[in-house]
Amino acid sequence: MEERLILISNDDGISSKGIDTLIRIAQPYGKVVVVAPANAQSGKSHSVSLTRPVRFEKIYDSENLEKYVLYGTPVDCVKSALTKILPRKPDLMLSGINHGSNTAISLIYSGTMGAAIEASFYGIPSIGLSIVTHDLDADFSVVEKTAPALIEKVLEHGMPEMVSLNVNYPVCQLNDFNGFKICSQTKSYWYEDFEETVDKYGNQAYYQRGHLVNIEPDNKDCDESAIAGNYASIVPVKVDFTDYKMIDELKKWNL
Amino acid sequence: MEERLILISNDDGISSKGIDTLIRIAQPYGKVVVVAPANAQSGKSHSVSLTRPVRFEKIYDSENLEKYVLYGTPVDCVKSALTKILPRKPDLMLSGINHGSNTAISLIYSGTMGAAIEASFYGIPSIGLSIVTHDLDADFSVVEKTAPALIEKVLEHGMPEMVSLNVNYPVCQLNDFNGFKICSQTKSYWYEDFEETVDKYGNQAYYQRGHLVNIEPDNKDCDESAIAGNYASIVPVKVDFTDYKMIDELKKWNL
Repeated sequence: MEERLILISNDDGISSKGIDTLIRIAQPYGKVVVVAPANAQSGKSHSVSLTRPVRFEKIYDSENLEKYVLYGTPVDCVKSALTKILPRKPDLMLSGINHGSNTAISLIYSGTMGAAIEASFYGIPSIGLSIVTHDLDADFSVVEKTAPALIEKVLEHGMPEMVSLNVNYPVCQLNDFNGFKICSQTKSYWYEDFEETVDKYGNQAYYQRGHLVNIEPDNKDCDESAIAGNYASIVPVKVDFTDYKMIDELKKWNL
Repeated sequence: MEERLILISNDDGISSKGIDTLIRIAQPYGKVVVVAPANAQSGKSHSVSLTRPVRFEKIYDSENLEKYVLYGTPVDCVKSALTKILPRKPDLMLSGINHGSNTAISLIYSGTMGAAIEASFYGIPSIGLSIVTHDLDADFSVVEKTAPALIEKVLEHGMPEMVSLNVNYPVCQLNDFNGFKICSQTKSYWYEDFEETVDKYGNQAYYQRGHLVNIEPDNKDCDESAIAGNYASIVPVKVDFTDYKMIDELKKWNL
């Protein structure tokens, strides 16, 4: 049987602790090819470089692990891997481990999930993994001990086309970890809180800060509640933007 | 009654012909405030500038029209408008008119729709408009004659939270235009075709090209079919990434 081929990317860049941990988690399952951005790509969502060429370089090459650094977005990494780097379609795509939460509405801004979602368009079983702290030295020991069971299930069952998994881990020790919980994406929005800065010419500019507002705090089956209960949330993510209910409504408008 | 407030943005930049046309279309309906990127932001999807401050400048100010140029993404434009520029929540948000198709899977890469979708998160009725040609001098006369009827319907009926409209116009003359068609987003993927370029140091890099592959060519009710029939497609877009069917499947995995 041909050896399994696993593609890894992320949005924190190829030098992050999260991607190093994910590589270690993945290596027992096959040959790992990492194609990851040179620098931080947080908030890059599903963006793709169209107006400039994308460049990548191989920076590590051994029998079971290759690493490429790419000057572009997480989605650029997946497209370049599938089109120019990998010898064939990979059997699994892993993205992360992101330093920071990608629960709730944060999912749509996430470069980590952008990469996982992109891979799912090509029928590749894909998982985005995050931990809900921005700490660059985050403790990934719970992820390292528990994510293999999830990866094995995904390899065993496969995934439908266009569906990926958005997995978020709480910050806790293994003793306090309550396992995985299958969830919906929490209904929420982002409360903006802009931090003003002034450059040396007196121009104002703004860092975009803020926090998530959970508009269904009593829903126990959504990812924010899972995290609060020290579960790792698993949200199956499907990209179909059509609001089928609204189609019927619009047809009554007599446009 | 207070005058209506209308926010306009796009992803082709504040100097494009498409946004000028959209401003003209919107002006009869209220005061228009334009907050648009300084330069082309095609393919920026839902990306937001997190690691650097966002700057904007007022470049035009009259009683019924203000224009701001912003150094950032389309979603940055909407967030900045709502948080720092507008005196109150606008009654309508219009994005475009994009030079290029945003039907089918292109929607997820679209900065035009990123801006419209972002506005819908805050309960603002929002419409993204595109024409299916990249021609910088595209003929928008059909849009200009027919989009007002759609805007009036949206102002009359309002829109549910988290729902926006993705409207794509065919390239045709008014005589050949068949009107609006309410559609689903065409199931499709992007076939990659990378164009190699070599810099003066001999480094290879790639422009991402390619074309859309329609995987449901016989579906008459999707946006690609509407465009082919010289209709303007209207897809109601809802952001809820959860695949509820897959939740039941995952629960059987005994994770």
